[in-house]
Amino acid sequence: MIVEVIAVGTELLLGQIVNSNTSTMGAALAEQGIDAHYQQTVGDNLSRIASAIRVALDRSDAVVMTGGIGPTQDDITREAVCEVTGRELVFSEAYADQLKEWWSRRGREMPQSNLRQAYYPEGAEIISNPRGTAPGLMLEHDGKLIFCVPGVPAEMEHLMLNEVVPRLVAASGNQQVIASRVIRTWGRPESEVAEILDDLYNSSVNPSLAFLASNSEIKVRVTAKAATAAEAQLLIEPMESEVVSRLGETVFGSDDETIEWVLLRLLSDRGYTIGTAESMTGGMVSARLTELPGSSAVVKGGLVAYDSELKQRLLGLADVTEVVTTDAALAMAKGARSLLDVDVAIAVTGSAGPEPLEKPVGTVIVGVATPADTRVRELRFNGDRERLRTYGTAAALHLTRLALIGKWWKE
Amino acid sequence: MIVEVIAVGTELLLGQIVNSNTSTMGAALAEQGIDAHYQQTVGDNLSRIASAIRVALDRSDAVVMTGGIGPTQDDITREAVCEVTGRELVFSEAYADQLKEWWSRRGREMPQSNLRQAYYPEGAEIISNPRGTAPGLMLEHDGKLIFCVPGVPAEMEHLMLNEVVPRLVAASGNQQVIASRVIRTWGRPESEVAEILDDLYNSSVNPSLAFLASNSEIKVRVTAKAATAAEAQLLIEPMESEVVSRLGETVFGSDDETIEWVLLRLLSDRGYTIGTAESMTGGMVSARLTELPGSSAVVKGGLVAYDSELKQRLLGLADVTEVVTTDAALAMAKGARSLLDVDVAIAVTGSAGPEPLEKPVGTVIVGVATPADTRVRELRFNGDRERLRTYGTAAALHLTRLALIGKWWKE
Repeated sequence: MIVEVIAVGTELLLGQIVNSNTSTMGAALAEQGIDAHYQQTVGDNLSRIASAIRVALDRSDAVVMTGGIGPTQDDITREAVCEVTGRELVFSEAYADQLKEWWSRRGREMPQSNLRQAYYPEGAEIISNPRGTAPGLMLEHDGKLIFCVPGVPAEMEHLMLNEVVPRLVAASGNQQVIASRVIRTWGRPESEVAEILDDLYNSSVNPSLAFLASNSEIKVRVTAKAATAAEAQLLIEPMESEVVSRLGETVFGSDDETIEWVLLRLLSDRGYTIGTAESMTGGMVSARLTELPGSSAVVKGGLVAYDSELKQRLLGLADVTEVVTTDAALAMAKGARSLLDVDVAIAVTGSAGPEPLEKPVGTVIVGVATPADTRVRELRFNGDRERLRTYGTAAALHLTRLALIGKWWKE
Repeated sequence: MIVEVIAVGTELLLGQIVNSNTSTMGAALAEQGIDAHYQQTVGDNLSRIASAIRVALDRSDAVVMTGGIGPTQDDITREAVCEVTGRELVFSEAYADQLKEWWSRRGREMPQSNLRQAYYPEGAEIISNPRGTAPGLMLEHDGKLIFCVPGVPAEMEHLMLNEVVPRLVAASGNQQVIASRVIRTWGRPESEVAEILDDLYNSSVNPSLAFLASNSEIKVRVTAKAATAAEAQLLIEPMESEVVSRLGETVFGSDDETIEWVLLRLLSDRGYTIGTAESMTGGMVSARLTELPGSSAVVKGGLVAYDSELKQRLLGLADVTEVVTTDAALAMAKGARSLLDVDVAIAVTGSAGPEPLEKPVGTVIVGVATPADTRVRELRFNGDRERLRTYGTAAALHLTRLALIGKWWKE
C-alpha cells in the first residue's frame, strides 16, 4: 500500500511555520512498513486542495490529510474532500453533543464556530479526538481511502498513531516489512563517511545504505525489506556491524539514541552527577540534558554565566579580561564542578556572532571536568548565530561523551 | 508566476528529519510576491523524482528543487532533471577546479566522491555556492524554469535568497505584490480569537484574514494583494488596527517580533537587566532570552536549579520539601534576583512528566520579580514532556512581558 500525506495550510506555503507534521506522519507510516513515495503541501484554497487530492489518489492507494479541519472559517479540507468524492456535508447531532460536553468539562461555553466541526462528508466515519475538538475522518472512494486529521501536532499524532495507521495496516493486507537502522556519528564530514563506506553503498541492494547530514551529526541509514520484521533485522545486522566497525568512535548511538540519551546513560552507569557552565550557548546544553524523563537523577543544574561578572563571582575566574580562551573554558568547568557540587561539569564559551567576541565568529571552546581529569578543545564552525549555538551545544555534549569513555576528539 | 518547491530525500518521507527548507523557501518566495500553490516531497528514487518534476511543471511555471545534489551516491536530482528534460550529464572542468580549490583552502584533500558535483545537465547554468561544494543549477525547459539547490539549510538559503529568487522575480515580469502582516497573540484559545474576528473574516476579501495556532501562540495573518508593496500596506493597516484593538493586551507583537525580542526591548527601554531561575524548563527560558544578537546587554545569566539542594543553597529557599508551589516560585524569583544581581528575575517550576511531581503533570508555576513587585501564576497545560516544557517556557516569557507593562494574565 502506497500512502500519500497532504498537509493543508497557506501558512505552510508562506513559510510562517515549519511543517513538522509530515515528518511525524512519515515516521509513523515507515515504522509499519507502509510505503510513502510523495508528500504534498497545499494552501487553504478549495480547488487546489481538491486538485492535490486528485493527484494523490492517482499515484497512491490512500491519502492522509492534515490540517484545515479546525474551527475557523479558513478550514476547508472537509469541503474539498466532498468536491473530489461528490458528497455533501452533513451535520452530526451526536458529535455536536460531544463538542458541547468537551467544552462544559472545561467549565467554558462552546464558541458557536466550533459547531463547524460537527459537519462531515456523508458516509464518512467520524473518529473521536480526545485531545481537541476537530474529529478525524475516514472515507472510501473508488476503492481508495481518504483520512483527515487535525493540523495541531499533538492531536494529529494521537489520531495518526492510534487510529489512522492501524486502519491502513489492516487495509493493506500482508505485505513486506521495511526496517531500518540509523547509525549516528559525530566528528567526520559527510563526504568522508561516504568515502569510507563507498564499496558497501555500491554493492549492497538489500539492505541499502543512505547518508544524511543533520545538524552536526552524520547519520548512516541501513534499510532492509523482508517478509517479517525479524528477517529484515537479520539482513540489517551484519551490515550495521561492518559500518560501526569502520567508523569507530565517531559512532555514538543508533536510531533514537540521541547524544543526550547516550550521555545520561554513561553518567548513570558511573554513578556521576553532571552540571553546566554556559556562556555562548546560554542554557541550551542544560536544556538538552534535561529533555529526557528521568534526567533529574543525573543532572543537578547549571549556571548560565552570560555576563563576565558572574563568571568571576560565581565560577571563580581570576581574570575575565578574556573569556573566549581555553583557560577560561577550563576555569569555568572547574568552577562549575565546585559551585554545583557535581562529578562532571561541561563549560562552553565562544563567539556566536554576528559581531566577533575576542575570537572570530564560529569559535566554540568546550571544557570538560570529570573526576579523572579536565580537558579542553577549541573548534571552529560556519553558520549563523542559531546554527553556531546549536553546533556548539552538540559539540559540548559529544566531547563530554568522549571524555567519559576516555577518548578525545581528533583535530 | 507560480513556483513549486520540490524537496528531495527519503529521510524526509521517513520522517528522520523535519523539512524546514520548504518553509524557508516559501517565505522567500512570498516576500517577493511570487505565488506558490503546492509543495512536494519525494524520496531518492529516480523515476519518482522525475514524476514529481512532471507534476510540478504541469501546474506551475517554475520548479525549485532542494536536496539530492550532494556528494554521495544517493544524490540523484541531477539525473532526474536530465530524464525529464531529455539532456545528458556533462562534466565541468572549471567547476572541478573550483572544488579542488575549495578543499585546498581548508587544508584538506578532496574526497574523490566530490567530483560528482562537477557533473551538470547539459545547457544548465552552474551557480556557485560559497557555503559548500554542491553548486546551484538553473535550466529552461519548454518555457519553464527548473532550479536545483542543495538540501543543507544554510547552503540552500544562501542560494535561494541571492540567486534563485532574484532570477524568478526577473523572469516573472511585473506582477501583483502580496504583502502580509502577522499579528501575534498569547493567552486566548484559537476559537475565541476567531469568534472575536468572525465578522471581519467573513466580510473582507482583500485584505483577507487567516488564523494560525503555533505552540501556545495564536497568530492572525492579514494578507493583501496590490500593484505595489506600498498599496498593499495601505490595505493592511486599517485591518491590522482593528484586529489589534479587538484583541487587546493579548497582542504582543507582529511579524518576526518574537516574545523574546519584545521582552528584550521592554527591558532595554527601562534599563533593566534580567536573569532566570529554572527548574522544569531546565535552561530553555535562558536559551531563548540569549537567542538574539545583542542580548548580552540585557541578559546577565541564569541558574538552572534542577536539584532541590541548589534551590536551597544558591537561591535561598527555606523549605524544599515542596518545590512545585507558588511559594517556591516566588522564592526562586527573589533568590535569583539577588544571586545574579539583576533587576528582573523569571522563575519556573512545575511538573513536566511523565511522572507527576507533587502536582499533576502539566502544572507550570511562573514567578516574576521586578523592581516594582513580585508576581506568581500557576497554569495548567496539556501535552507531553517536550510540549509542556515549550509551553512553560513561552508562558514564562509572556508573563514577564505582562508584569513589565503592568498587566497580568487573566484566569
